[in-house]
Amino acid sequence: MNRKELVEQIFAKKSFLCVGLDTDINKLPKCITESEDIQGAEAEMIFRFNKAIIDATAPYCVAYKPNLAFYESRGIDGMIAFENTIKYLHSHYPNHFIIADAKRGDIGNTSKMYAQTFFEEYNIDSVTVAPYMGEDSVKPFLEYDGKWVILLALTSNKGSHDFQLTEDKEGERLFEKVLKKSQEWGNDENMMYVVGATQGKMFEDIRKVAPNHFLLVPGVGAQGGSLQEVCKYGIIKDCGLLVNSSRGIIYASNGDDFAEVAGQKAKELQAEMAAELAKL
Amino acid sequence: MNRKELVEQIFAKKSFLCVGLDTDINKLPKCITESEDIQGAEAEMIFRFNKAIIDATAPYCVAYKPNLAFYESRGIDGMIAFENTIKYLHSHYPNHFIIADAKRGDIGNTSKMYAQTFFEEYNIDSVTVAPYMGEDSVKPFLEYDGKWVILLALTSNKGSHDFQLTEDKEGERLFEKVLKKSQEWGNDENMMYVVGATQGKMFEDIRKVAPNHFLLVPGVGAQGGSLQEVCKYGIIKDCGLLVNSSRGIIYASNGDDFAEVAGQKAKELQAEMAAELAKL
Repeated sequence: MNRKELVEQIFAKKSFLCVGLDTDINKLPKCITESEDIQGAEAEMIFRFNKAIIDATAPYCVAYKPNLAFYESRGIDGMIAFENTIKYLHSHYPNHFIIADAKRGDIGNTSKMYAQTFFEEYNIDSVTVAPYMGEDSVKPFLEYDGKWVILLALTSNKGSHDFQLTEDKEGERLFEKVLKKSQEWGNDENMMYVVGATQGKMFEDIRKVAPNHFLLVPGVGAQGGSLQEVCKYGIIKDCGLLVNSSRGIIYASNGDDFAEVAGQKAKELQAEMAAELAKL
Repeated sequence: MNRKELVEQIFAKKSFLCVGLDTDINKLPKCITESEDIQGAEAEMIFRFNKAIIDATAPYCVAYKPNLAFYESRGIDGMIAFENTIKYLHSHYPNHFIIADAKRGDIGNTSKMYAQTFFEEYNIDSVTVAPYMGEDSVKPFLEYDGKWVILLALTSNKGSHDFQLTEDKEGERLFEKVLKKSQEWGNDENMMYVVGATQGKMFEDIRKVAPNHFLLVPGVGAQGGSLQEVCKYGIIKDCGLLVNSSRGIIYASNGDDFAEVAGQKAKELQAEMAAELAKL
């Protein structure tokens, strides 16, 4: 999916919501895990949960972000669930942008294999990439038309302060260096940045260095970030934001109504987003 | 496997060689891919290649390092091959140290899932971790007895210069900050560092900050690093090094003798390592 198509989806649906599919087998509702026809089949449990969440939230979001860690942690069963989820999205919701949240990055010939994994094997729109290893760790992901690198810049977690804010001799912080340097490798049509919703006013600093790039913003909800603050400092004229919520949506209810409540939570966020888009 | 056990293996075998299982389906010899009984079954091809390489090299190495990218890029088949390789190592070579070369790292609750993946689901000794996201991205991996984090410090690739060498206001380079800061989280009994063999004299600087930690050293062979130089500046009294070779061993021959030649290459490296250990 290219930028134009993504932006069209955002304004058509009045939403820049990304739903994070951090599907934890230990948090699935009993109506899934104890379903008679499932008989403990993990891959089917995870997929069935995702399918219900997707069907309930699809009208209110423009993107889905499965978090690979949650699938990998269940071994082959988890990866089958992941694959089936991607196939389901492709066949039923081809206009939703898919993000493989994998935070990969390795030397050139290995990053090339990771790019093949997500862009060829699974045909996903984008993958999150870690910048520590530099240019040749990122570039192999940028060689696919219509595919995106989403590079870690300033993350939502406490540990983001350990290295990302380190200033060099000229006072440039590491995340700023990542933003600048990476613009020599890709552009705002094939690269986005991860910026945590918990970073608040720092979005101003991000926009100074990356005024036109889309930002993937995790951390609204369970992690405490504010949608309004993110928009205040981060939104641009074609929106330029994908705001993710995972736990706040998919685990909003643990009952038989889990999908319905997830849909409601997504709808609430969509309404807030519509109000922000109306200001543009 | 704890440090004492690893060091015992190194001195018993006079080797600190790690064989990298970067198994690329497109580079497998015809005697595997065209084997009549395999009939194009990818998982079995990859596993059969690994099994032959492992059997041929096991006497000369102390560790194996499957690179996850190569398995993931083949989807479910690749992951089945990965799982079978790990099971084979556990059952036939329980004294070999296993490194999941995955370069993971995410916010705390996600890193916890990655730790479960490699330490519980697959029961692997260690996993490579990227430091960009800081403390809470690394710590969940340190909560397992007898398991190891191998943190990226100064990598072997060209892109390592992009960010890892950035100096802060006090002249401390990012990789040094990673080495120092991470020693607040783990110790030399549960944490190693990745330092590329191509970094030569920089090992002196690494040893100033991490005098006792084991270093995982990729980049000998195909990437151009020198074993002698690595040892000159990096070896310590209980060795403190695991030197990896992947392509230089596993693809040394593409013929029917691929395993035999891999064994010879491993043996040659082992002999060089024995000479280095004899100097201690």
